[in-house]
Amino acid sequence: MISSISNQQLKEITKLQKQPKYRRASSLFIAEGFKMVKEAAEKGCLVKTYISELVLGKKQESLEWLLKEFPYETVSGQVFRQLSDTVTTQGILGVVKQPSYNIKDILDDKKHIWLMLDDIRDPGNLGTIMRTAEGAGLSAVIMGKGTADLFNPKTVRSTMGSIFRMPFIYVDDITEIIKQIKDNGYSVYGTAMAGSIAYDKADYTKGAGIVIGNEANGIQERVLECITGSIHIPMDGKLESLNAAVAAAVVMYEAARQRRGKIIR
Amino acid sequence: MISSISNQQLKEITKLQKQPKYRRASSLFIAEGFKMVKEAAEKGCLVKTYISELVLGKKQESLEWLLKEFPYETVSGQVFRQLSDTVTTQGILGVVKQPSYNIKDILDDKKHIWLMLDDIRDPGNLGTIMRTAEGAGLSAVIMGKGTADLFNPKTVRSTMGSIFRMPFIYVDDITEIIKQIKDNGYSVYGTAMAGSIAYDKADYTKGAGIVIGNEANGIQERVLECITGSIHIPMDGKLESLNAAVAAAVVMYEAARQRRGKIIR
Repeated sequence: MISSISNQQLKEITKLQKQPKYRRASSLFIAEGFKMVKEAAEKGCLVKTYISELVLGKKQESLEWLLKEFPYETVSGQVFRQLSDTVTTQGILGVVKQPSYNIKDILDDKKHIWLMLDDIRDPGNLGTIMRTAEGAGLSAVIMGKGTADLFNPKTVRSTMGSIFRMPFIYVDDITEIIKQIKDNGYSVYGTAMAGSIAYDKADYTKGAGIVIGNEANGIQERVLECITGSIHIPMDGKLESLNAAVAAAVVMYEAARQRRGKIIR
Repeated sequence: MISSISNQQLKEITKLQKQPKYRRASSLFIAEGFKMVKEAAEKGCLVKTYISELVLGKKQESLEWLLKEFPYETVSGQVFRQLSDTVTTQGILGVVKQPSYNIKDILDDKKHIWLMLDDIRDPGNLGTIMRTAEGAGLSAVIMGKGTADLFNPKTVRSTMGSIFRMPFIYVDDITEIIKQIKDNGYSVYGTAMAGSIAYDKADYTKGAGIVIGNEANGIQERVLECITGSIHIPMDGKLESLNAAVAAAVVMYEAARQRRGKIIR
Protein backbone atom coordinates (compact mmCIF):
# COMPACT_ATOMS: atom_id res chain seq x y z
CA MET A 1 0.00 0.00 0.00
CA ILE A 2 1.24 3.50 -0.88
CA SER A 3 1.22 5.58 2.29
CA SER A 4 3.27 8.63 1.34
CA ILE A 5 2.31 11.46 -1.01
CA SER A 6 5.96 11.66 -2.07
CA ASN A 7 5.77 8.18 -3.60
CA GLN A 8 7.09 8.34 -7.18
CA GLN A 9 3.85 7.09 -8.78
CA LEU A 10 1.75 9.62 -6.91
CA LYS A 11 4.13 12.40 -7.92
CA GLU A 12 3.43 11.32 -11.49
CA ILE A 13 -0.32 11.59 -10.89
CA THR A 14 0.04 15.07 -9.42
CA LYS A 15 2.04 16.11 -12.49
CA LEU A 16 -0.71 14.75 -14.76
CA GLN A 17 -3.30 16.72 -12.76
CA LYS A 18 -1.41 19.99 -12.74
CA GLN A 19 0.83 20.21 -15.82
CA PRO A 20 -0.86 20.55 -19.23
CA LYS A 21 2.52 20.13 -20.94
CA TYR A 22 3.17 16.86 -19.17
CA ARG A 23 -0.29 15.61 -20.13
CA ARG A 24 0.40 16.49 -23.76
CA ALA A 25 3.86 14.90 -23.79
CA SER A 26 2.65 11.66 -22.19
CA SER A 27 -0.80 11.52 -23.88
CA LEU A 28 -2.20 10.57 -20.48
CA PHE A 29 -4.63 12.17 -18.05
CA ILE A 30 -6.32 11.50 -14.72
CA ALA A 31 -9.98 10.48 -14.46
CA GLU A 32 -11.54 10.48 -10.98
CA GLY A 33 -14.52 8.58 -9.61
CA PHE A 34 -16.08 5.18 -10.21
CA LYS A 35 -18.06 5.95 -13.32
CA MET A 36 -15.17 7.67 -15.05
CA VAL A 37 -12.67 4.91 -14.31
CA LYS A 38 -15.18 2.30 -15.45
CA GLU A 39 -15.82 4.17 -18.70
CA ALA A 40 -12.07 4.46 -19.29
CA ALA A 41 -11.75 0.70 -18.81
CA GLU A 42 -14.62 -0.07 -21.19
CA LYS A 43 -13.16 2.30 -23.78
CA GLY A 44 -9.81 0.49 -23.49
CA CYS A 45 -8.02 3.62 -22.26
CA LEU A 46 -7.35 2.65 -18.63
CA VAL A 47 -3.66 2.26 -17.80
CA LYS A 48 -3.76 1.84 -14.03
CA THR A 49 -6.20 2.35 -11.15
CA TYR A 50 -5.34 3.92 -7.80
CA ILE A 51 -7.78 3.11 -5.06
CA SER A 52 -8.14 4.21 -1.45
CA GLU A 53 -7.87 1.43 1.13
CA LEU A 54 -11.15 2.76 2.55
CA VAL A 55 -12.95 1.92 -0.71
CA LEU A 56 -11.20 -1.39 -1.28
CA GLY A 57 -12.73 -2.64 1.93
CA LYS A 58 -16.29 -2.13 0.68
CA LYS A 59 -17.01 -4.89 -1.82
CA GLN A 60 -18.63 -3.73 -5.03
CA GLU A 61 -19.37 -5.92 -8.01
CA SER A 62 -18.18 -3.49 -10.71
CA LEU A 63 -15.05 -2.79 -8.70
CA GLU A 64 -14.12 -6.47 -8.57
CA TRP A 65 -14.21 -6.69 -12.37
CA LEU A 66 -12.07 -3.58 -12.67
CA LEU A 67 -9.42 -4.77 -10.25
CA LYS A 68 -9.27 -8.22 -11.81
CA GLU A 69 -8.82 -6.95 -15.36
CA PHE A 70 -6.54 -3.93 -14.84
CA PRO A 71 -3.44 -3.22 -12.73
CA TYR A 72 -4.05 -1.22 -9.56
CA GLU A 73 -2.35 0.18 -6.47
CA THR A 74 -3.88 0.68 -3.05
CA VAL A 75 -3.35 4.07 -1.41
CA SER A 76 -3.88 4.92 2.27
CA GLY A 77 -7.09 6.87 2.95
CA GLN A 78 -5.31 9.98 4.14
CA VAL A 79 -2.90 10.08 1.22
CA PHE A 80 -5.72 9.50 -1.28
CA ARG A 81 -7.52 12.55 0.06
CA GLN A 82 -4.39 14.62 -0.57
CA LEU A 83 -4.10 13.17 -4.06
CA SER A 84 -7.70 13.82 -5.07
CA ASP A 85 -8.63 16.94 -7.01
CA THR A 86 -12.20 16.89 -5.65
CA VAL A 87 -13.60 18.06 -2.33
CA THR A 88 -15.45 14.83 -1.59
CA THR A 89 -13.45 12.04 -3.18
CA GLN A 90 -14.88 8.67 -4.20
CA GLY A 91 -11.48 7.15 -3.41
CA ILE A 92 -10.71 5.96 -6.91
CA LEU A 93 -8.85 7.42 -9.88
CA GLY A 94 -7.33 6.14 -13.08
CA VAL A 95 -4.29 7.01 -15.15
CA VAL A 96 -5.88 7.03 -18.59
CA LYS A 97 -4.71 7.21 -22.21
CA GLN A 98 -6.12 10.22 -24.06
CA PRO A 99 -8.69 9.09 -26.66
CA SER A 100 -7.70 10.25 -30.12
CA TYR A 101 -9.60 10.60 -33.39
CA ASN A 102 -8.55 11.52 -36.89
CA ILE A 103 -9.96 14.39 -38.87
CA LYS A 104 -10.99 12.21 -41.81
CA ASP A 105 -13.29 10.04 -39.67
CA ILE A 106 -14.66 13.14 -38.00
CA LEU A 107 -15.49 14.85 -41.30
CA ASP A 108 -16.93 11.62 -42.75
CA ASP A 109 -19.28 11.11 -39.80
CA LYS A 110 -22.80 10.40 -40.98
CA LYS A 111 -24.56 12.79 -38.64
CA HIS A 112 -22.61 15.58 -40.38
CA ILE A 113 -23.08 18.20 -37.71
CA TRP A 114 -19.96 19.60 -36.10
CA LEU A 115 -19.33 22.02 -33.27
CA MET A 116 -16.22 24.16 -33.64
CA LEU A 117 -14.71 26.02 -30.71
CA ASP A 118 -12.62 29.04 -31.47
CA ASP A 119 -10.72 29.81 -28.29
CA ILE A 120 -13.02 28.71 -25.45
CA ARG A 121 -10.93 29.38 -22.33
CA ASP A 122 -12.95 28.24 -19.35
CA PRO A 123 -12.29 24.58 -18.41
CA GLY A 124 -15.79 24.16 -16.95
CA ASN A 125 -17.44 25.60 -20.07
CA LEU A 126 -15.45 23.23 -22.28
CA GLY A 127 -16.47 20.16 -20.29
CA THR A 128 -20.12 21.22 -20.24
CA ILE A 129 -20.00 21.81 -24.01
CA MET A 130 -18.65 18.27 -24.60
CA ARG A 131 -21.43 16.87 -22.42
CA THR A 132 -24.13 18.84 -24.25
CA ALA A 133 -22.66 17.94 -27.66
CA GLU A 134 -23.14 14.27 -26.87
CA GLY A 135 -26.70 14.86 -25.73
CA ALA A 136 -27.55 16.92 -28.82
CA GLY A 137 -26.13 14.19 -31.08
CA LEU A 138 -23.25 16.01 -32.76
CA SER A 139 -20.62 14.34 -34.93
CA ALA A 140 -17.66 15.84 -33.11
CA VAL A 141 -16.23 18.83 -31.28
CA ILE A 142 -13.40 20.46 -33.23
CA MET A 143 -11.19 22.79 -31.24
CA GLY A 144 -8.94 25.61 -32.40
CA LYS A 145 -5.52 26.07 -30.87
CA GLY A 146 -6.35 28.57 -28.12
CA THR A 147 -9.13 26.38 -26.68
CA ALA A 148 -8.73 25.14 -23.09
CA ASP A 149 -7.21 21.72 -22.37
CA LEU A 150 -9.86 19.01 -22.40
CA PHE A 151 -7.74 16.92 -20.02
CA ASN A 152 -7.70 19.49 -17.24
CA PRO A 153 -9.19 17.68 -14.18
CA LYS A 154 -12.03 20.21 -13.90
CA THR A 155 -12.90 19.78 -17.59
CA VAL A 156 -12.73 16.00 -17.42
CA ARG A 157 -15.10 16.06 -14.46
CA SER A 158 -17.62 18.37 -16.10
CA THR A 159 -17.82 16.19 -19.24
CA MET A 160 -19.53 13.56 -17.03
CA GLY A 161 -18.00 10.80 -19.13
CA SER A 162 -18.59 12.37 -22.56
CA ILE A 163 -14.81 12.67 -22.86
CA PHE A 164 -14.83 8.90 -23.56
CA ARG A 165 -17.81 8.96 -25.92
CA MET A 166 -17.80 12.20 -27.89
CA PRO A 167 -15.30 12.42 -30.78
CA PHE A 168 -13.06 15.52 -30.64
CA ILE A 169 -9.92 16.90 -32.20
CA TYR A 170 -7.57 19.85 -31.72
CA VAL A 171 -6.57 21.52 -34.98
CA ASP A 172 -3.87 24.08 -35.74
CA ASP A 173 -6.08 26.22 -37.92
CA ILE A 174 -9.83 26.03 -37.57
CA THR A 175 -10.37 27.99 -40.83
CA GLU A 176 -8.90 25.06 -42.78
CA ILE A 177 -11.53 22.73 -41.33
CA ILE A 178 -14.31 25.22 -41.95
CA LYS A 179 -13.26 25.40 -45.59
CA GLN A 180 -13.25 21.61 -45.85
CA ILE A 181 -16.72 21.33 -44.32
CA LYS A 182 -17.98 23.97 -46.75
CA ASP A 183 -16.27 22.19 -49.67
CA ASN A 184 -18.11 19.05 -48.61
CA GLY A 185 -21.37 20.92 -49.13
CA TYR A 186 -22.37 22.01 -45.63
CA SER A 187 -23.11 25.47 -44.25
CA VAL A 188 -21.04 26.74 -41.33
CA TYR A 189 -22.74 29.18 -38.94
CA GLY A 190 -20.95 31.26 -36.34
CA THR A 191 -22.59 32.86 -33.30
CA ALA A 192 -21.95 36.60 -33.10
CA MET A 193 -23.46 39.50 -31.15
CA ALA A 194 -24.72 41.07 -34.36
CA GLY A 195 -25.24 37.83 -36.27
CA SER A 196 -27.25 38.50 -39.39
CA ILE A 197 -30.02 35.95 -38.70
CA ALA A 198 -31.52 34.50 -35.51
CA TYR A 199 -30.00 31.09 -34.68
CA ASP A 200 -33.35 29.35 -35.22
CA LYS A 201 -33.72 30.74 -38.75
CA ALA A 202 -30.64 28.83 -39.93
CA ASP A 203 -31.28 25.39 -41.48
CA TYR A 204 -29.40 22.55 -39.80
CA THR A 205 -31.38 19.67 -41.30
CA LYS A 206 -28.98 19.04 -44.19
CA GLY A 207 -25.99 19.04 -41.85
CA ALA A 208 -23.97 22.04 -40.69
CA GLY A 209 -20.99 23.37 -38.80
CA ILE A 210 -21.55 25.60 -35.76
CA VAL A 211 -18.78 27.89 -34.50
CA ILE A 212 -18.70 29.26 -30.94
CA GLY A 213 -16.16 31.94 -30.07
CA ASN A 214 -14.18 33.09 -27.08
CA GLU A 215 -16.06 34.00 -23.87
CA ALA A 216 -15.02 37.65 -23.92
CA ASN A 217 -14.21 38.44 -27.55
CA GLY A 218 -16.39 36.10 -29.61
CA ILE A 219 -15.22 34.57 -32.88
CA GLN A 220 -11.97 35.93 -34.37
CA GLU A 221 -12.30 38.16 -37.43
CA ARG A 222 -10.32 35.76 -39.64
CA VAL A 223 -12.65 32.90 -38.68
CA LEU A 224 -15.79 35.00 -39.24
CA GLU A 225 -14.50 35.78 -42.73
CA CYS A 226 -14.61 32.17 -43.86
CA ILE A 227 -17.97 31.00 -42.43
CA THR A 228 -21.19 30.76 -44.46
CA GLY A 229 -23.04 33.23 -42.25
CA SER A 230 -23.34 34.57 -38.73
CA ILE A 231 -26.23 33.85 -36.37
CA HIS A 232 -27.32 35.54 -33.16
CA ILE A 233 -29.28 34.38 -30.14
CA PRO A 234 -31.96 37.01 -29.40
CA MET A 235 -31.55 38.48 -25.93
CA ASP A 236 -34.05 40.31 -23.77
CA GLY A 237 -33.14 42.75 -21.03
CA LYS A 238 -29.73 44.43 -20.89
CA LEU A 239 -27.63 41.30 -21.10
CA GLU A 240 -24.47 41.65 -23.18
CA SER A 241 -23.99 37.96 -23.88
CA LEU A 242 -24.87 34.46 -22.76
CA ASN A 243 -22.42 32.08 -21.10
CA ALA A 244 -20.48 30.28 -23.87
CA ALA A 245 -21.67 26.81 -22.81
CA VAL A 246 -25.26 28.06 -22.74
CA ALA A 247 -24.95 29.67 -26.19
CA ALA A 248 -23.50 26.44 -27.59
CA ALA A 249 -26.33 24.44 -25.98
CA VAL A 250 -29.08 26.68 -27.35
CA VAL A 251 -27.77 26.39 -30.92
CA MET A 252 -26.92 22.65 -30.73
CA TYR A 253 -30.36 21.83 -29.35
CA GLU A 254 -32.09 23.97 -31.98
CA ALA A 255 -30.19 21.94 -34.60
CA ALA A 256 -31.27 18.71 -32.87
CA ARG A 257 -34.87 19.91 -32.70
CA GLN A 258 -34.95 20.69 -36.42
CA ARG A 259 -33.28 17.40 -37.27
CA ARG A 260 -35.43 15.07 -35.20
CA GLY A 261 -37.28 12.90 -37.66
CA LYS A 262 -35.92 14.63 -40.74
CA ILE A 263 -32.20 13.98 -40.86
CA ILE A 264 -30.98 13.43 -44.40
CA ARG A 265 -28.10 10.96 -44.34
CA MET B 1 -6.55 54.68 3.35
CA ILE B 2 -7.19 51.24 4.80
CA SER B 3 -3.90 49.34 4.83
CA SER B 4 -4.63 46.37 7.10
CA ILE B 5 -6.82 43.35 6.34
CA SER B 6 -7.81 43.29 10.01
CA ASN B 7 -9.55 46.67 9.66
CA GLN B 8 -13.09 46.36 11.04
CA GLN B 9 -14.80 47.32 7.76
CA LEU B 10 -12.80 44.80 5.79
CA LYS B 11 -13.63 42.11 8.33
CA GLU B 12 -17.26 42.92 7.66
CA ILE B 13 -16.70 42.47 3.91
CA THR B 14 -15.02 39.10 4.44
CA LYS B 15 -17.97 38.01 6.56
CA LEU B 16 -20.36 39.05 3.77
CA GLN B 17 -18.30 37.06 1.27
CA LYS B 18 -18.05 33.92 3.35
CA GLN B 19 -21.06 33.66 5.65
CA PRO B 20 -24.47 33.01 4.06
CA LYS B 21 -26.15 33.53 7.43
CA TYR B 22 -24.57 36.92 7.85
CA ARG B 23 -25.67 37.90 4.34
CA ARG B 24 -29.22 36.85 5.16
CA ALA B 25 -29.30 38.63 8.51
CA SER B 26 -27.92 41.88 7.09
CA SER B 27 -29.67 41.71 3.67
CA LEU B 28 -26.34 42.79 2.15
CA PHE B 29 -23.85 41.20 -0.23
CA ILE B 30 -20.60 41.96 -2.02
CA ALA B 31 -20.46 42.79 -5.74
CA GLU B 32 -17.02 42.92 -7.37
CA GLY B 33 -15.81 44.71 -10.48
CA PHE B 34 -16.65 48.00 -12.21
CA LYS B 35 -19.74 46.90 -14.09
CA MET B 36 -21.31 45.25 -11.07
CA VAL B 37 -20.70 48.21 -8.74
CA LYS B 38 -22.05 50.59 -11.39
CA GLU B 39 -25.18 48.47 -11.86
CA ALA B 40 -25.68 48.37 -8.08
CA ALA B 41 -25.43 52.16 -7.99
CA GLU B 42 -27.91 52.61 -10.84
CA LYS B 43 -30.32 50.20 -9.20
CA GLY B 44 -30.08 52.22 -5.96
CA CYS B 45 -28.63 49.27 -4.04
CA LEU B 46 -25.07 50.49 -3.48
CA VAL B 47 -24.21 51.15 0.17
CA LYS B 48 -20.47 51.80 -0.03
CA THR B 49 -17.61 51.32 -2.49
CA TYR B 50 -14.16 50.01 -1.62
CA ILE B 51 -11.50 50.84 -4.15
CA SER B 52 -7.85 49.94 -4.50
CA GLU B 53 -5.42 52.89 -4.45
CA LEU B 54 -3.99 51.45 -7.67
CA VAL B 55 -7.32 51.97 -9.46
CA LEU B 56 -8.09 55.34 -7.88
CA GLY B 57 -4.95 56.69 -9.57
CA LYS B 58 -6.23 55.91 -13.06
CA LYS B 59 -8.90 58.48 -13.87
CA GLN B 60 -12.06 57.06 -15.36
CA GLU B 61 -15.18 59.00 -16.15
CA SER B 62 -17.70 56.48 -14.81
CA LEU B 63 -15.61 56.08 -11.68
CA GLU B 64 -15.72 59.82 -10.94
CA TRP B 65 -19.52 59.80 -10.96
CA LEU B 66 -19.59 56.78 -8.67
CA LEU B 67 -17.20 58.27 -6.14
CA LYS B 68 -18.96 61.64 -6.14
CA GLU B 69 -22.42 60.16 -5.56
CA PHE B 70 -21.69 57.33 -3.12
CA PRO B 71 -19.50 56.93 -0.04
CA TYR B 72 -16.22 55.11 -0.58
CA GLU B 73 -13.03 53.99 1.13
CA THR B 74 -9.60 53.61 -0.42
CA VAL B 75 -7.73 50.36 0.27
CA SER B 76 -4.03 49.70 -0.28
CA GLY B 77 -3.27 47.61 -3.39
CA GLN B 78 -1.86 44.68 -1.44
CA VAL B 79 -4.74 44.55 1.03
CA PHE B 80 -7.31 44.80 -1.78
CA ARG B 81 -5.82 41.73 -3.42
CA GLN B 82 -6.27 39.84 -0.15
CA LEU B 83 -9.83 41.10 0.11
CA SER B 84 -10.85 40.15 -3.42
CA ASP B 85 -12.62 36.89 -4.12
CA THR B 86 -11.31 36.79 -7.73
CA VAL B 87 -7.95 35.76 -9.12
CA THR B 88 -7.45 38.91 -11.17
CA THR B 89 -9.18 41.70 -9.30
CA GLN B 90 -10.41 44.93 -10.91
CA GLY B 91 -9.68 46.70 -7.63
CA ILE B 92 -13.24 47.71 -6.86
CA LEU B 93 -16.08 46.18 -4.87
CA GLY B 94 -19.32 47.36 -3.37
CA VAL B 95 -21.29 46.55 -0.25
CA VAL B 96 -24.74 46.22 -1.76
CA LYS B 97 -28.32 45.90 -0.53
CA GLN B 98 -29.99 42.69 -1.72
CA PRO B 99 -32.68 43.51 -4.30
CA SER B 100 -36.07 42.21 -3.19
CA TYR B 101 -39.32 41.56 -5.00
CA ASN B 102 -42.74 40.50 -3.83
CA ILE B 103 -44.58 37.45 -5.03
CA LYS B 104 -47.66 39.39 -6.13
CA ASP B 105 -45.69 41.55 -8.59
CA ILE B 106 -43.86 38.46 -9.81
CA LEU B 107 -47.06 36.52 -10.48
CA ASP B 108 -48.72 39.57 -12.07
CA ASP B 109 -45.83 40.11 -14.52
CA LYS B 110 -47.13 40.53 -18.05
CA LYS B 111 -44.66 38.17 -19.71
CA HIS B 112 -46.22 35.42 -17.56
CA ILE B 113 -43.40 32.93 -17.94
CA TRP B 114 -41.65 31.81 -14.77
CA LEU B 115 -38.67 29.61 -14.04
CA MET B 116 -38.88 27.64 -10.81
CA LEU B 117 -35.82 26.04 -9.25
CA ASP B 118 -36.37 23.11 -6.97
CA ASP B 119 -33.12 22.65 -5.08
CA ILE B 120 -30.38 23.78 -7.50
CA ARG B 121 -27.20 23.43 -5.43
CA ASP B 122 -24.30 24.61 -7.57
CA PRO B 123 -23.59 28.36 -7.14
CA GLY B 124 -22.20 28.65 -10.71
CA ASN B 125 -25.26 26.94 -12.20
CA LEU B 126 -27.58 29.28 -10.30
CA GLY B 127 -25.78 32.39 -11.55
CA THR B 128 -25.73 31.14 -15.13
CA ILE B 129 -29.46 30.32 -14.90
CA MET B 130 -30.24 33.90 -13.74
CA ARG B 131 -28.19 35.26 -16.64
CA THR B 132 -29.93 33.03 -19.19
CA ALA B 133 -33.36 33.81 -17.71
CA GLU B 134 -32.80 37.49 -18.42
CA GLY B 135 -31.68 36.74 -21.97
CA ALA B 136 -34.66 34.47 -22.63
CA GLY B 137 -37.04 37.12 -21.33
CA LEU B 138 -38.57 35.39 -18.33
CA SER B 139 -40.82 37.08 -15.76
CA ALA B 140 -38.85 35.88 -12.74
CA VAL B 141 -36.84 33.09 -11.18
CA ILE B 142 -38.63 31.53 -8.22
CA MET B 143 -36.47 29.44 -5.91
CA GLY B 144 -37.44 26.71 -3.47
CA LYS B 145 -35.84 26.54 -0.06
CA GLY B 146 -32.94 24.17 -0.81
CA THR B 147 -31.68 26.27 -3.73
CA ALA B 148 -28.17 27.73 -3.47
CA ASP B 149 -27.63 31.26 -2.17
CA LEU B 150 -27.86 33.81 -4.97
CA PHE B 151 -25.59 36.16 -3.01
CA ASN B 152 -22.64 33.78 -2.88
CA PRO B 153 -19.72 35.67 -4.52
CA LYS B 154 -19.34 33.01 -7.23
CA THR B 155 -23.06 33.15 -8.05
CA VAL B 156 -23.13 36.93 -8.10
CA ARG B 157 -20.18 36.92 -10.53
CA SER B 158 -21.72 34.37 -12.88
CA THR B 159 -25.00 36.34 -13.14
CA MET B 160 -22.97 38.99 -15.04
CA GLY B 161 -25.23 41.70 -13.64
CA SER B 162 -28.54 39.88 -14.07
CA ILE B 163 -28.78 39.81 -10.27
CA PHE B 164 -29.70 43.52 -10.51
CA ARG B 165 -32.10 43.15 -13.43
CA MET B 166 -33.88 39.81 -13.18
CA PRO B 167 -36.69 39.57 -10.62
CA PHE B 168 -36.34 36.63 -8.23
CA ILE B 169 -37.76 35.33 -4.98
CA TYR B 170 -37.09 32.56 -2.48
CA VAL B 171 -40.22 30.77 -1.32
CA ASP B 172 -40.79 28.33 1.54
CA ASP B 173 -42.87 25.93 -0.49
CA ILE B 174 -42.60 25.92 -4.25
CA THR B 175 -45.72 23.75 -4.62
CA GLU B 176 -47.83 26.66 -3.29
CA ILE B 177 -46.55 28.92 -6.08
CA ILE B 178 -47.08 26.22 -8.70
CA LYS B 179 -50.68 25.89 -7.57
CA GLN B 180 -51.17 29.65 -7.77
CA ILE B 181 -49.70 29.81 -11.29
CA LYS B 182 -52.00 26.97 -12.35
CA ASP B 183 -54.99 28.66 -10.69
CA ASN B 184 -54.15 31.76 -12.72
CA GLY B 185 -54.60 29.66 -15.86
CA TYR B 186 -51.06 28.72 -16.86
CA SER B 187 -49.50 25.30 -17.43
CA VAL B 188 -46.47 24.33 -15.33
CA TYR B 189 -43.97 21.95 -16.93
CA GLY B 190 -41.21 20.14 -15.07
CA THR B 191 -38.11 18.61 -16.68
CA ALA B 192 -37.69 14.93 -15.82
CA MET B 193 -35.59 12.05 -17.18
CA ALA B 194 -38.72 10.25 -18.29
CA GLY B 195 -40.82 13.33 -18.95
CA SER B 196 -43.92 12.37 -20.88
CA ILE B 197 -43.42 14.77 -23.81
CA ALA B 198 -40.36 16.32 -25.44
CA TYR B 199 -39.71 19.86 -24.16
CA ASP B 200 -40.39 21.37 -27.59
CA LYS B 201 -43.86 19.77 -27.81
CA ALA B 202 -45.10 21.78 -24.82
CA ASP B 203 -46.84 25.07 -25.63
CA TYR B 204 -45.31 28.10 -23.94
CA THR B 205 -47.00 30.78 -26.06
CA LYS B 206 -49.90 31.37 -23.65
CA GLY B 207 -47.50 31.69 -20.71
CA ALA B 208 -46.15 28.89 -18.53
CA GLY B 209 -44.14 27.85 -15.53
CA ILE B 210 -40.98 25.76 -16.01
CA VAL B 211 -39.55 23.72 -13.13
CA ILE B 212 -35.90 22.57 -13.04
CA GLY B 213 -34.85 20.09 -10.36
CA ASN B 214 -31.75 19.23 -8.37
CA GLU B 215 -28.53 18.40 -10.27
CA ALA B 216 -28.36 14.83 -9.00
CA ASN B 217 -31.92 13.90 -8.09
CA GLY B 218 -34.13 15.98 -10.36
CA ILE B 219 -37.47 17.37 -9.22
CA GLN B 220 -38.84 16.13 -5.89
CA GLU B 221 -41.76 13.73 -6.01
CA ARG B 222 -44.08 16.10 -4.15
CA VAL B 223 -43.33 18.85 -6.66
CA LEU B 224 -43.81 16.54 -9.66
CA GLU B 225 -47.22 15.63 -8.26
CA CYS B 226 -48.56 19.16 -8.57
CA ILE B 227 -47.27 20.21 -12.01
CA THR B 228 -49.36 20.13 -15.20
CA GLY B 229 -47.02 17.70 -16.93
CA SER B 230 -43.43 16.55 -17.23
CA ILE B 231 -41.17 17.24 -20.20
CA HIS B 232 -37.88 15.67 -21.25
CA ILE B 233 -34.97 16.89 -23.32
CA PRO B 234 -34.12 14.15 -25.86
CA MET B 235 -30.54 12.91 -25.43
CA ASP B 236 -28.31 11.07 -27.84
CA GLY B 237 -25.42 8.86 -26.82
CA LYS B 238 -25.14 7.40 -23.34
CA LEU B 239 -25.50 10.62 -21.44
CA GLU B 240 -27.51 10.34 -18.21
CA SER B 241 -28.41 13.99 -17.95
CA LEU B 242 -27.54 17.51 -19.05
CA ASN B 243 -25.98 20.11 -16.79
CA ALA B 244 -28.82 21.86 -14.89
CA ALA B 245 -27.99 25.32 -16.29
CA VAL B 246 -27.90 23.84 -19.82
CA ALA B 247 -31.24 22.07 -19.36
CA ALA B 248 -32.80 25.30 -18.06
CA ALA B 249 -31.35 27.22 -21.03
CA VAL B 250 -32.63 24.74 -23.61
CA VAL B 251 -36.19 24.90 -22.26
CA MET B 252 -36.21 28.67 -21.64
CA TYR B 253 -34.94 29.37 -25.15
CA GLU B 254 -37.46 26.99 -26.70
CA ALA B 255 -40.15 28.97 -24.87
CA ALA B 256 -38.64 32.23 -26.17
CA ARG B 257 -38.46 30.81 -29.70
CA GLN B 258 -42.12 29.82 -29.65
CA ARG B 259 -43.16 33.14 -28.17
CA ARG B 260 -41.24 35.47 -30.49
CA GLY B 261 -43.89 37.36 -32.43
CA LYS B 262 -46.81 35.53 -30.91
CA ILE B 263 -46.96 36.38 -27.24
CA ILE B 264 -50.51 36.81 -26.01
CA ARG B 265 -50.57 39.45 -23.29
